[in-house]
Amino acid sequence: MENIADYMQTLGKNAKAAAQILVKTSTAKKNKALQAIAEQLNIARETIKQANQKDLDQGKNNGLSSALLDRLELTDTRIENMITGLKQIIELPDPVGSIRDLKYNTVGLQIGKMRTPIGVIGMIYESRPNVTIDAAALCLKSGNAIILRGGSEAIHSNQAIAQCIQKGLQEVGLPTDSVQLVNTTDRQAVDLLITMSEYVDVIIPRGGKSLIQRISDHARVPVIKHLDGICHVYIDQYANLEKAYKIVLNAKCYRYGICGAMETLLVHEQVAHTALPTIAKQLEEKGVELRGCEQTIKYLPHLSQATEDDWSTEYLAAILSIRIVSDIDQAINHINHYGSHHTDSICTENTESVKRFLTEVDSSSVMHDTPTCFADGFEYGLGAEIGISTDKLHVRGPVGLEGLTTEKYIVLGDGQTRG
Amino acid sequence: MENIADYMQTLGKNAKAAAQILVKTSTAKKNKALQAIAEQLNIARETIKQANQKDLDQGKNNGLSSALLDRLELTDTRIENMITGLKQIIELPDPVGSIRDLKYNTVGLQIGKMRTPIGVIGMIYESRPNVTIDAAALCLKSGNAIILRGGSEAIHSNQAIAQCIQKGLQEVGLPTDSVQLVNTTDRQAVDLLITMSEYVDVIIPRGGKSLIQRISDHARVPVIKHLDGICHVYIDQYANLEKAYKIVLNAKCYRYGICGAMETLLVHEQVAHTALPTIAKQLEEKGVELRGCEQTIKYLPHLSQATEDDWSTEYLAAILSIRIVSDIDQAINHINHYGSHHTDSICTENTESVKRFLTEVDSSSVMHDTPTCFADGFEYGLGAEIGISTDKLHVRGPVGLEGLTTEKYIVLGDGQTRG
Repeated sequence: MENIADYMQTLGKNAKAAAQILVKTSTAKKNKALQAIAEQLNIARETIKQANQKDLDQGKNNGLSSALLDRLELTDTRIENMITGLKQIIELPDPVGSIRDLKYNTVGLQIGKMRTPIGVIGMIYESRPNVTIDAAALCLKSGNAIILRGGSEAIHSNQAIAQCIQKGLQEVGLPTDSVQLVNTTDRQAVDLLITMSEYVDVIIPRGGKSLIQRISDHARVPVIKHLDGICHVYIDQYANLEKAYKIVLNAKCYRYGICGAMETLLVHEQVAHTALPTIAKQLEEKGVELRGCEQTIKYLPHLSQATEDDWSTEYLAAILSIRIVSDIDQAINHINHYGSHHTDSICTENTESVKRFLTEVDSSSVMHDTPTCFADGFEYGLGAEIGISTDKLHVRGPVGLEGLTTEKYIVLGDGQTRG
Repeated sequence: MENIADYMQTLGKNAKAAAQILVKTSTAKKNKALQAIAEQLNIARETIKQANQKDLDQGKNNGLSSALLDRLELTDTRIENMITGLKQIIELPDPVGSIRDLKYNTVGLQIGKMRTPIGVIGMIYESRPNVTIDAAALCLKSGNAIILRGGSEAIHSNQAIAQCIQKGLQEVGLPTDSVQLVNTTDRQAVDLLITMSEYVDVIIPRGGKSLIQRISDHARVPVIKHLDGICHVYIDQYANLEKAYKIVLNAKCYRYGICGAMETLLVHEQVAHTALPTIAKQLEEKGVELRGCEQTIKYLPHLSQATEDDWSTEYLAAILSIRIVSDIDQAINHINHYGSHHTDSICTENTESVKRFLTEVDSSSVMHDTPTCFADGFEYGLGAEIGISTDKLHVRGPVGLEGLTTEKYIVLGDGQTRG
């Protein structure tokens, strides 16, 4: 490889040029490209699996954990899912070009907002090679160019997938630079990518918290991210407890490892004595370890006591911390203070409690009588997601096609002058 | 003053606590506060003018330019305008709490987006003391707490205005920490404000380019900004030239010092020989200095030649650079390359040219047959603006109440479970 700084600059310049084409590419042509990519993936199944086997072998030699190896593996089913995913993205409406709020102002100018692609997206991710195709497809459909920087452990798999994308783009006559894979495992590539603000409009990192924190601390380009998902369910004094039991069980046990999994349960003191024994029984039967506040332990003396650290820990495991609160204010304060502004839910039959919780909890998703594990682009009807944002600006929650676009003002006149 | 780091932390903490109240404050109550502030301003006219006189005297002693002294001065008319401005903001609809796209998903969850305040805004600005009231009023109406950091040259004026705001807030029972003025001219306060990401959600700087660049380079909090306004008018080959002359004259001469003023005129080569002499005559009669590209000088031999630097200069003065282009592609490329993504306009009667210009020019406002000087929150019907954004994420163009809010997902269920 030539000088890495030059190499990254070239990727940036190429991406920007491709973006200038994509911004004016019709929905039909973008869909044709996605279709062509799906066909290339279908043809290249064996090639992809061979490349993946290389990564798996190297991973084993390098002592990757079995969890990481599992994420890395591309089975027939996973390749099939990649193809299905592309077809789903073809079906989604294209947000680009839609105009809203077009209104005449006092001098007869028509002023409104038009949705446009952001431009160039830099995607930094680890292990799962299917992110390569998902991210590329979402960016393409929303008219953005993308520079992909996958993990070094998946480089052969990612290259094989990227080649299918290149062929598909070429087939329909779109610039192959629309989707570029960083072809080096040199870590400096990441540092360059996140500071190339003349070429890259936004960075989307996916992976472990430390990776994302590091990117976020050093980026000169805006970052769309979430660091962790410390999600809460709050059982209000007015909750329907039968409903609450189902919600709590699902929020914790649907999958321990997802960012929407409940990590702390808050229970109003007036229902704690009824609710806690049932909840504890159901969760412990599933093998969940419970840690309680001092008051919780009065009802469930066999629990270990939760420390201050527990309230701000994303376990991503079969562990749950439980705290009894004296009212909804304490619940909201706890969530805003210890939470990660990801997804939080209230169980209640009281409309005032619903209204207060939805309004005052400062999270990207606020829920009523819904398990937090529903926080997901597919479940929200976005078709697919490129990530989840806990930032407050631009886009919050699951990020789909709309989150990959922005709006500019359009002003249509007929020679009006000011003043 | 105590330790400045502690002082700024206290402002941050107080603002965050106030924001937690403002998020649930009714529109009626916020309007009552704005009304009370207007009355306090009315009562305090003399006090404000006396404080302003102190700043003016100091400014003269410190050798401030007459332009700066003019910006600093609070005349009766300007105080009156501040009061009128408040009344206009009272009349604006409150964006907070509006819900869009609430739809059932496949399992019967209702999912939509609710507009909410951003939280705590940090405003950094220079000279004009009226920004103190405008920014405070827009933030209050949109449910945000604000920390104001005005220029040291306006500290007495700003303090007098801030006192009116405090009294108004107190009168209606809203936290006085909703609007806090940084009461020190120590420059370290700015460095602290822009890095206090645990308390401040967004920084909005207004002032000279170097101030904004410095803030943008060092902030750890997201910044909503524009650096400069290098705005273009492009006269297409299909332009109605009579209309184009009016647009060009207005775009340049409405006011030289505003960010929406045209700085470069692009002319299609097929209309240059007809259009340029008329345009030159009209602009030169107004005292505008013209600088042309080599080809322009063939038609207007008395012009000095524009250098490469001219294309990326925001004159903010009676100077205009002119370039002849061979087609719309060259015009679009020039704008995207040399412009500042602020506001650009096309003069044409051809719908294909309009469509291409609006789609492909990557600016916060793209216009058809409209002078660029219309780029303004009042003209766009926002009622007022806190600034103009040339960023691509979150908000572009004039930033009003909606730009000071964000959307979160709300999910309304009835005990549905996933999987």
